[in-house]
Amino acid sequence: MKLSRYFLPVLKDISSDAKIKSHQLMLRIGMIRQSSAGIYSWLPLGYKILKKIEKVVREEQDKSGAIEMLMPTIQSSDIWRESGRYESYGEEMLRFKDRQDRELLYGPTNEELITQLFRDNIKSYKSLPLMLYHIQWKFRDEIRPRFGIMRCREFLMKDTYSFDLSKEDAQKSYFRMMLCYLKTFQKLELKAIPTKAETGPIGGDLSHEFIILADTGESEIFLDKNILNFDPSNLKYSENSFLEISNHYSKYYSATTEMHDKDKFEKITTKKSQMIKKGIEVGHIFYFGQKYSKPLNAIVNSKDGKNVNVYMGSYGIGVSRLVGAVIEAKYNNNIMKWPKSITPFHVAIINLGKKNDSISKKAFKLYDELLKNNFEVIIDDTENNPSNKFKNFDLIGIPFQIIVGSKNKDEEFEFKELGKDTKVVKIKELINILEKEYKIVK
Amino acid sequence: MKLSRYFLPVLKDISSDAKIKSHQLMLRIGMIRQSSAGIYSWLPLGYKILKKIEKVVREEQDKSGAIEMLMPTIQSSDIWRESGRYESYGEEMLRFKDRQDRELLYGPTNEELITQLFRDNIKSYKSLPLMLYHIQWKFRDEIRPRFGIMRCREFLMKDTYSFDLSKEDAQKSYFRMMLCYLKTFQKLELKAIPTKAETGPIGGDLSHEFIILADTGESEIFLDKNILNFDPSNLKYSENSFLEISNHYSKYYSATTEMHDKDKFEKITTKKSQMIKKGIEVGHIFYFGQKYSKPLNAIVNSKDGKNVNVYMGSYGIGVSRLVGAVIEAKYNNNIMKWPKSITPFHVAIINLGKKNDSISKKAFKLYDELLKNNFEVIIDDTENNPSNKFKNFDLIGIPFQIIVGSKNKDEEFEFKELGKDTKVVKIKELINILEKEYKIVK
Repeated sequence: MKLSRYFLPVLKDISSDAKIKSHQLMLRIGMIRQSSAGIYSWLPLGYKILKKIEKVVREEQDKSGAIEMLMPTIQSSDIWRESGRYESYGEEMLRFKDRQDRELLYGPTNEELITQLFRDNIKSYKSLPLMLYHIQWKFRDEIRPRFGIMRCREFLMKDTYSFDLSKEDAQKSYFRMMLCYLKTFQKLELKAIPTKAETGPIGGDLSHEFIILADTGESEIFLDKNILNFDPSNLKYSENSFLEISNHYSKYYSATTEMHDKDKFEKITTKKSQMIKKGIEVGHIFYFGQKYSKPLNAIVNSKDGKNVNVYMGSYGIGVSRLVGAVIEAKYNNNIMKWPKSITPFHVAIINLGKKNDSISKKAFKLYDELLKNNFEVIIDDTENNPSNKFKNFDLIGIPFQIIVGSKNKDEEFEFKELGKDTKVVKIKELINILEKEYKIVK
Repeated sequence: MKLSRYFLPVLKDISSDAKIKSHQLMLRIGMIRQSSAGIYSWLPLGYKILKKIEKVVREEQDKSGAIEMLMPTIQSSDIWRESGRYESYGEEMLRFKDRQDRELLYGPTNEELITQLFRDNIKSYKSLPLMLYHIQWKFRDEIRPRFGIMRCREFLMKDTYSFDLSKEDAQKSYFRMMLCYLKTFQKLELKAIPTKAETGPIGGDLSHEFIILADTGESEIFLDKNILNFDPSNLKYSENSFLEISNHYSKYYSATTEMHDKDKFEKITTKKSQMIKKGIEVGHIFYFGQKYSKPLNAIVNSKDGKNVNVYMGSYGIGVSRLVGAVIEAKYNNNIMKWPKSITPFHVAIINLGKKNDSISKKAFKLYDELLKNNFEVIIDDTENNPSNKFKNFDLIGIPFQIIVGSKNKDEEFEFKELGKDTKVVKIKELINILEKEYKIVK
């Protein structure tokens, strides 16, 4: 991509409404623009990152055995009356009538709709266990939207729903998804801590929030720092793994302010291992058994011919919120660095030449060569001055930069990983490094 | 994917409301379910196909030079008042108020929002030409939704917007997108005819609908059959190509009922070349110059320092509608066959064995082997009877089937391309055939 042909409007001054660094950065480098209160357009750079996060989330869902589908954004009020939530959900639900005077709403979540789909299409225990997910825009009519896409009204969420024949099976599904979430956040280079949570408007018996640590987080989290030492990468989806997770996270203390028990914290953690940090919620999982399958009458026939209301859980990841959360975690001292799994481009070429001079030609030759090798490349071919270019690309956050200026010999390039030292390399070496870094297999 | 673990609810009886074959098939094989009038959930099979069509559309957009972004589904009424369409758009626009009593609407199209984004972020001719697109759900409150996802209320549309400094440049953008559409529909194995159209609520000076021929189409189309002889596959994005397209489609007659001129038709076509067919609209492009840039004040500075209201066009493809349109075009005599570019799976294994018998084991060995070779495979491991399995897979429409039964030797398989004869092949040959058919490069 040539920067001169891209739509990446960089701002010098940003609105003073932008209080946290993710909101500031996203406005600054043209990732998003607000179109009305709490509703945003995603400009090309922001959308590219959002899609990459979505892809990581999708791949991990698929590996866990969950199956993708899509429910609509607009729902009928009827099923929400059946579940009893139409009245109780409150003003965050955006409600309206269509031209035929039918009561509709913009889905804030999908427990009702998925339960109805299950009820109408699945009759036998043979179809269980079943996990379905979708990645769809939701709307919650926040009274005071703020912090950019971190607390906005229209947001992208991945929500999974599990269906099981018994409470025991349902709890396996719960830990299956917990493992999937740990793997997902690890891919995003985030350390997410599953922390017992209140069940709120979703309801149910068991719930965990996934909190990542970031100094600018909204909520406070109390924890035993040993809880951070858990590596899910080699765990398979098996009962042993589920047990291992359950043991680890019940062994070490973690709690948000709402759930914090000061006496317990003091009792079961050592002074040395105590941590009190700010955190950001990036996921939330619920086990709620028959809470929706009973009122909505979602029944399967068991092996011995009995009618059983299915046991369910739901599992959410804030996909659009994660864009902000990653920035909160990774943006420091005016340098942003995207995790390699979700960087908008693999590498940036900062061309310090002028239009059609020998430096520019060298830069474009490199650009073509990298494209030919299947890298996603952006080249700064604008007329901005060098210091401006450097400053912008430190904010744009592509992990690798190649600076093409007058300093180097014809076949040599200045190559830099953000936050590390510059080295001079030839093109073959450059391609090797990038292929290794991005695990591109030829 | 194991069919027993998939969510693919096949119906024996479908509602008599389903009048056209795409609607019938999509209900029958569990691609969609209606959740309320004209609003559908996309079940896994249907969603997989929708995503594949989206991918083809996206890839061709990217090749044309258009840049992807995303605008929200919910818009403020303010910008629609600025353009003057808030009053004129009519009841198909779903309007409502949020909890703060602000007037909002669910976007039926995005000319206003993109013009506002352009106005607020782009100031110089240097950023032009620019083409931006997004693929987003839209809502049109049809008074009488029907034909399944062909005329529904919540639908997925790809809409592109072009911005140019002059009328001449804007018309190049118009033909650039026309070429892109011809290439897109060709990838989907559809013959789409750009046909002059009325500009309707979008407005403007110039407009083409893209119509594909299908016996069950809603609208009638009159054409010179020579118009069908046009191959866009080797055309590059250049002015020569744009001229070639323009010449071809103005040389040969085509018109929908609304635009049909009987006398002209008789005069410029020979009796032998006349065709009157049913057609389905799958795309619509508009050139409307300064219609939105003037009221919304979208101005750039030209090279000689003048203020110019940008010249714009908009270009839509009904992505969800295409799922139905492909079925209308490709589904005949109880056999559906998806184009290879969008088939939900590369190949289906129809296992006629019983659980864990030697036939089943052979089938699963093949399944593992094909997965290892990076094919998308579905295996029917259910307890349905063979005739049922054959019937279902002829409807599901995966182009290649492998039947594993008792007839063949251990290392041999019955292999069939839908609509062609069965042949007996060994596994290596099978993999070779599939790699060739799907152009998989190793």
